[in-house]
Amino acid sequence: MPVRKATTVWENDLMSGNGKVRVASNALPEFPVSWKGRTEQGAALTSPEELVAAAHASCFAMAFSANLSRKGSIPKKLTVTAETSFDKVGEGWKVTKSVLNVVGNVPGLDGAKFEEYAKEAEHSCPISNALRNNVEITVNAKLE
Amino acid sequence: MPVRKATTVWENDLMSGNGKVRVASNALPEFPVSWKGRTEQGAALTSPEELVAAAHASCFAMAFSANLSRKGSIPKKLTVTAETSFDKVGEGWKVTKSVLNVVGNVPGLDGAKFEEYAKEAEHSCPISNALRNNVEITVNAKLE
Repeated sequence: MPVRKATTVWENDLMSGNGKVRVASNALPEFPVSWKGRTEQGAALTSPEELVAAAHASCFAMAFSANLSRKGSIPKKLTVTAETSFDKVGEGWKVTKSVLNVVGNVPGLDGAKFEEYAKEAEHSCPISNALRNNVEITVNAKLE
Repeated sequence: MPVRKATTVWENDLMSGNGKVRVASNALPEFPVSWKGRTEQGAALTSPEELVAAAHASCFAMAFSANLSRKGSIPKKLTVTAETSFDKVGEGWKVTKSVLNVVGNVPGLDGAKFEEYAKEAEHSCPISNALRNNVEITVNAKLE
């Protein structure tokens, strides 16, 4: 049902220009983006790929918490890190990979089940499904 | 080349739990997410879908500025709004649509060319390509 919105105001060409991004919820302060900040490792700016990593990590955490609860194992804590790769492929750039690393504190569950349920959750995660077949998705799951 | 990272720490089940998200660049302050905040229209929290909207708007602005410059029409300003829909489909939820609305100030370019170049840019935009065939993408382009 919900439609979520964000706006980027960009000035100038790609290399020397820059953009300012606002999200409609106003839950985040306005932030800058640039091509340099997007393509440098360890840049101080966020980027479309870092925002995708944040979307994927938070979506997968929700999907996994729902799946664990469905199986009778409510998680105390799930720490999910998403690592999104942005690579030059031929003449263009591509979002090639998203790796989900999850460490869990789930009382009474063994490691094998934790892994199995993590893989199921990856398949039901809406952001995974939005990236499916275009971006290579991997899940690494272990208990604390 | 760059790998971008974000981490969500989630506690408890989906409905009563909540998560905190950090991006590795530290360009954004830590922010909360929740299922309620994700699925309510007009919520005060950001959400995976709003983050995708921010990623898509900023990526498309970059792709379009690059394409316009390639054609000899460096943009003074591009204002890109992405609207991302999150809908219940059957038993699950799905990112169904991303609508890109772009208004441009591009000296010496006519509206028809602006639209044509916008559609080309949508095809080269890496975030569009990450969502391709899973999320319905629309571009609406007009000059100021």
